[in-house]
Amino acid sequence: MPEALRLVSEHRCFGGTVAYYRHDSRVCGGEMRFSIYLPPQAQAGKVPVLYYLSGLTCTEETFQIKAGAHRLAAELGLMLVVPDTSPRDTGIPNESADWEVGTAAGFYLDATQQPWASRFHMFSYVTGELPELVGKSFPARMDREGIFGHSMGGHGALVCALRQPGRYRSVSAFAPICAPMRVPWGKKAFTTYIGGDTEAWRAWDSTELIRAARTPLPHLLVDQGTRDKFLVEQLKPELLREACEQSGQPLTLRIQDGYDHGYYFVSTFMADHLRHHAAALTA
Amino acid sequence: MPEALRLVSEHRCFGGTVAYYRHDSRVCGGEMRFSIYLPPQAQAGKVPVLYYLSGLTCTEETFQIKAGAHRLAAELGLMLVVPDTSPRDTGIPNESADWEVGTAAGFYLDATQQPWASRFHMFSYVTGELPELVGKSFPARMDREGIFGHSMGGHGALVCALRQPGRYRSVSAFAPICAPMRVPWGKKAFTTYIGGDTEAWRAWDSTELIRAARTPLPHLLVDQGTRDKFLVEQLKPELLREACEQSGQPLTLRIQDGYDHGYYFVSTFMADHLRHHAAALTA
Repeated sequence: MPEALRLVSEHRCFGGTVAYYRHDSRVCGGEMRFSIYLPPQAQAGKVPVLYYLSGLTCTEETFQIKAGAHRLAAELGLMLVVPDTSPRDTGIPNESADWEVGTAAGFYLDATQQPWASRFHMFSYVTGELPELVGKSFPARMDREGIFGHSMGGHGALVCALRQPGRYRSVSAFAPICAPMRVPWGKKAFTTYIGGDTEAWRAWDSTELIRAARTPLPHLLVDQGTRDKFLVEQLKPELLREACEQSGQPLTLRIQDGYDHGYYFVSTFMADHLRHHAAALTA
Repeated sequence: MPEALRLVSEHRCFGGTVAYYRHDSRVCGGEMRFSIYLPPQAQAGKVPVLYYLSGLTCTEETFQIKAGAHRLAAELGLMLVVPDTSPRDTGIPNESADWEVGTAAGFYLDATQQPWASRFHMFSYVTGELPELVGKSFPARMDREGIFGHSMGGHGALVCALRQPGRYRSVSAFAPICAPMRVPWGKKAFTTYIGGDTEAWRAWDSTELIRAARTPLPHLLVDQGTRDKFLVEQLKPELLREACEQSGQPLTLRIQDGYDHGYYFVSTFMADHLRHHAAALTA
């Protein structure tokens, strides 16, 4: 393991290991945290890597304690890599004052506006520096990457994949923010991080990127609960469906009756998502 | 549902429902909290009830978010009932000053020492008032009860079953405090709650109760990790094994290599425990 990685803790889990790390990030200009699940198969050789991007207010721990993913990841032989949701303790004034921007609200984009531009480069971190570190430090098949996420992280997973066509072999999302430029969370984050030029926002909006894409992504799987309190105002899966239909992007959008926005919903459909990724990553 | 129950929140999960309740407890003299998982089968009729007792510092939420039990409980048709680990906000001075006694450290016994004797009656709550409330409020087969728990709650599950021979059809534990009278956590709790008369402690100590039992409990399943930092000083499964051997109490004690004390361990072996209970409860 490179000296750069600082092990915080590790825990045996379903025959593999959950571990927490910190390291000095070049692209984020300070310490970053992530967690990882190494399945039992990683003791014998390289395994595919599935990135999970978490939602607002979450940390790198949330998925590991709440998602119930380890049993099946161990069976399928998937490494799970979960970055934190933003840089922390950056010294930026009031970085934690608002749960919708700043700490735990990095939105998986590269900020161009000060003071955030000095530290908040989550897109470059998640698609560049972190995978590089994972490839150097763990038995990861870097030619077999998948990505998924929840809410803000569902937006992140879709955008990371759409901005790097051909890279991720599998993509899925739980209750993603589908059209950030058209909803309050997204408008606020985009204004804060990349400024008032709404044309520039298109480069970070899933539905806009799907419309502009020359080649489709792999078949998308998206689950959305009907009792999700953010559904109507913030998430708008109907706009994702519309964009996919117009662009020929294959999409399975499942509307799940009675489920809300939290991890009781995410954990219920976790197995379907892991199998969706494994079908592409372990084929 | 009786008016006495106050619904805090409910969440659809694996086709069933996780719900959080509060109510005014007669035996604890104030508000108590519990969580419940109603499996899909509970929509059509009564289902067996499995109580889970949590460890030090936990709440009624810990199991529901960390244990990964819902998938299989839904499949097996088990209702899961999880009380909080003590009364809270009782007004007892310094109730939360020490994580080993007081708030979140009720030890599933009935306190006789003041100031705790006014409120800390977790044994009577868990074996009496709570089941009564569950039986009145939910589609529970009250002739089919099982009990399990973790650490302090593993002690609790064993003691509840041993003090009520014939009641629980299935019993198991994760990393239980096996011989509380002989370890620091137990000595401190017993002294605090039931006083300095060590003879009186025997009535709340699993190994002593097993030695004194006239009829054995159902076959016990116990899992214990080797990298559990509390193993040597606080848990002492070897004393449980010894007592069971001497008394003819059937026990499967599994020593799990490399696992620690937390929910990464608990979740790994949760399925085995749920199947152990279902075999007795749904037969």
